[in-house]
Amino acid sequence: MKTNGKITIQQIASMAGVSVATVSRVMNHKNTVKDTTRRKILDIMEKLNFNPSSVLVTKESSNTILLCVSELRNPFNGLVISGIQEAARQHNYRVFILQAQGVNFTFEDFKDVLQHHSFAGIILLTGVNDLKLLEMLALSCPIVRCNEFCAVNGISFVCIDEIAAARKATEYLISCGYRKIALLNSSLQFPFARRREEGYLEALQKAGIEKHDNWIAHISSINYSLAFSAAMNILTSSNKPDAFFTVSDVYAVAVIHAAKRLNIRVPEDISVIGFDNIELSSMMDPAITTVEQPGEQIGYQGCELLIEKINNPQTPVKKIFLDTELIVRESTAWRI
Amino acid sequence: MKTNGKITIQQIASMAGVSVATVSRVMNHKNTVKDTTRRKILDIMEKLNFNPSSVLVTKESSNTILLCVSELRNPFNGLVISGIQEAARQHNYRVFILQAQGVNFTFEDFKDVLQHHSFAGIILLTGVNDLKLLEMLALSCPIVRCNEFCAVNGISFVCIDEIAAARKATEYLISCGYRKIALLNSSLQFPFARRREEGYLEALQKAGIEKHDNWIAHISSINYSLAFSAAMNILTSSNKPDAFFTVSDVYAVAVIHAAKRLNIRVPEDISVIGFDNIELSSMMDPAITTVEQPGEQIGYQGCELLIEKINNPQTPVKKIFLDTELIVRESTAWRI
Repeated sequence: MKTNGKITIQQIASMAGVSVATVSRVMNHKNTVKDTTRRKILDIMEKLNFNPSSVLVTKESSNTILLCVSELRNPFNGLVISGIQEAARQHNYRVFILQAQGVNFTFEDFKDVLQHHSFAGIILLTGVNDLKLLEMLALSCPIVRCNEFCAVNGISFVCIDEIAAARKATEYLISCGYRKIALLNSSLQFPFARRREEGYLEALQKAGIEKHDNWIAHISSINYSLAFSAAMNILTSSNKPDAFFTVSDVYAVAVIHAAKRLNIRVPEDISVIGFDNIELSSMMDPAITTVEQPGEQIGYQGCELLIEKINNPQTPVKKIFLDTELIVRESTAWRI
Repeated sequence: MKTNGKITIQQIASMAGVSVATVSRVMNHKNTVKDTTRRKILDIMEKLNFNPSSVLVTKESSNTILLCVSELRNPFNGLVISGIQEAARQHNYRVFILQAQGVNFTFEDFKDVLQHHSFAGIILLTGVNDLKLLEMLALSCPIVRCNEFCAVNGISFVCIDEIAAARKATEYLISCGYRKIALLNSSLQFPFARRREEGYLEALQKAGIEKHDNWIAHISSINYSLAFSAAMNILTSSNKPDAFFTVSDVYAVAVIHAAKRLNIRVPEDISVIGFDNIELSSMMDPAITTVEQPGEQIGYQGCELLIEKINNPQTPVKKIFLDTELIVRESTAWRI
């Protein structure tokens, strides 16, 4: 007989046509069960590969943290995950990573997950947009959001001030003499994308620059090819921008390559700012000016917050904003 | 009373000073338990927040596959994981990803994991070197190895022919007129690294070229900075090579940047071959000649193998080798 999952005493009792108590008595080697019944139960256990010790799910199973990530291939998330793993290790927790099937987590992604596995807590690394889902998760166990502002009551988070970071980057381009500034953003499904767009627009408005819808692109995920197409689109339009603020270093690389393809020089003809300061940004030629996010810190502090909440459910909700820094490299220059 | 994990009938029985059978009888609402005993047991259950239905871990928990990865930040693994997720999704399985704490998985990494969580099967994406650990895992549930040859009996795997792929790349450099060929390899702790070095050495030997130990570097993990240092080391030695075969596109990027730093032109002065064909390799300037591994296919077929084994434990062990292809781009040229 083939069975893959855990078998319960209840299932064995039902198959043997006896009570759970009888199965328990056999498991506890009590001699109060008839020999034929005992034989029947032991036979079923053997067929099912039932290991009596497997029903001993102890408190230790709560040493597992579930880390929910939507974009595992975004290199920035790699940094955040390192920080989470580091904090978890120090506190003797292990981490299971669950990926969303789509851009955002849905109820479907969690189907059976919480019923069949026991977690001490959950870390959400972006990717949960559905408030009902957030509330459901928050009811199931302690939960912390990493790298994303969270408006739901009772959920602590660690993130950067997205609006300020995007405003600062855009203001830097304006201070270099640019007024035709494009925005390569992620899909507005992501709260971070909505906030960065807000910061970009604030900087434009403050400088009295009108926004130009054709220069704003929204890319569904952190994907080089999609960003390359979007950049080509903007750079081949009749009225070209002369600077780009992009919300990911991967997008900045795409803009630089699209420009190269079109014989547009960076930074002589256009300036480009990225976001994240992943290793790639300093590896590029030209090296990319970028907004540095403290990825490992975000992960580390997020996991620390969660463990604090696990150890003391009364811990008040904490909202931590970490600082960003604009790192000026070769992809930006004063407008000539 | 604070408890985080699952409480077992056994624990409640022990706290109440009764047998498991008695607890079961209370759970099954049997009227054969004394009122005072029943009250005592129910009190303990309440204090512990014990939910009798929580001991019902049904067969469905087996819809989870445990994916063990050591180098989550290696972009190539991102491709393999995509393939695994795709196959899992199609068969209605979910995947939990577990990272090794070090370069390779140890018994410590699996401590409590298999006791406290139920998995339908395990996919190892490299990173398990300890044969005893492999055997232990193979005993616990169906297991498949992805992206790495596996000599342990009973474990199916999907990988490329590492030796042939490395030989082909090195032979290509030789055919372009190079005889001073360096190797930027990963640590020989990784079976893939041992095999690629074997292929490299075979090609040299076949062409009557002596190996030059100073031109062979082993890097502990797929890390740009470490590879950059190793490349600088080799390129500043008195007797420089004029070509590099590297076992990762990330390493190839490091060689190209080290060369640039030293005013050595690629491909005019040195030719460079990478491995994997990650997106980055075509994004670079010069675009990188590389050995393409079918990453998504490796993941997809590996997961399919596992599910086949889950559904039919009698499935014979399968050893699948997928083809690689040398993609010639701008980082290699004929020797002048």
